[in-house]
Amino acid sequence: MENCLFCKFVKGEIPCAKVYESDKAIAFLDINPINPGHILVILKKHVDYIFDLEDKDYKELFLEAKKVAKAIKFALGPKRVGVAVEGFGVPHAHIHLVPINRGYELNPNNAKPMDNKELEKIAEKIRKGFGK
Amino acid sequence: MENCLFCKFVKGEIPCAKVYESDKAIAFLDINPINPGHILVILKKHVDYIFDLEDKDYKELFLEAKKVAKAIKFALGPKRVGVAVEGFGVPHAHIHLVPINRGYELNPNNAKPMDNKELEKIAEKIRKGFGK
Repeated sequence: MENCLFCKFVKGEIPCAKVYESDKAIAFLDINPINPGHILVILKKHVDYIFDLEDKDYKELFLEAKKVAKAIKFALGPKRVGVAVEGFGVPHAHIHLVPINRGYELNPNNAKPMDNKELEKIAEKIRKGFGK
Repeated sequence: MENCLFCKFVKGEIPCAKVYESDKAIAFLDINPINPGHILVILKKHVDYIFDLEDKDYKELFLEAKKVAKAIKFALGPKRVGVAVEGFGVPHAHIHLVPINRGYELNPNNAKPMDNKELEKIAEKIRKGFGK
C-alpha cells in the first residue's frame, strides 16, 4: 500500500536491518527494541489487522515467525522468544519477536531506540542462526 | 502432564472460566487480566515452549486463537485484540489474547486479579461472541 512504511521495506524503497526474506514474508530488526534482537515479522501482502488475514496467510505469517524465532534462539541464546502483536503503530500487521529471559520482560515501555550500526551487528548474528 | 495447572483445567479437575472448547484446544479467562476479557488459549496437548510445537499443532493453536480473538472482538468491541506469549508462568504453552484500545496497553505490569463472579460475567458475554 502506498505510504505504508513496511510496504516500502518490502519493496526495498526504504532500508531496514533485514534478517530474513521468503516469497511471502520479511523479518527485520525493530529500531526501538525491548531487548537486542527484537524483530518484526510481516507478510509482503498489506493487511492492517492481523485477525483480518485469511487463514492461509495467517498460518503462513505465524509459520514464518516460528522460523525466525528459532534463528533468534540459536543466534542469541535467550531462554525464550516472546511474541507480541498490538496493532496501533504501523498499520501493516506485524509480529514482534523478542528474546526474553524472565516474565514481565515483554513490556512495550522497555523499548529504546538503537543506532543503525548496533542494529546491523545484531542482524548479522541473527542471519547466521537460520537453517541451524 | 501431572502437576500442570492447565492440564488440570483441560481435564476439568480444577475449574476455570472457560469460554471455548474444541477437540484440540480450550480457552479461558486469565484470573489476572491486563484488561477485562483477557483470555488464554491452550492446546489440550502438554508442550511447554510454544516454538517446540510441531508445525501442525502450532498452526492449530494459532487458528484456535484467531477464532477466540474474533469472539472477543464481537462480544466486547475493543479496537484490537492483542496477542502475547511469554512462557515464564505455567509451563504449558499459552497465548494471551487481550482486548486493547491503544498502543502500550499490552503491558504485563497492568495485570490485576479479578474475582470469580466478575470473571464468570465476562466469560458469559464472550461465549455469545462465537460463530458470529
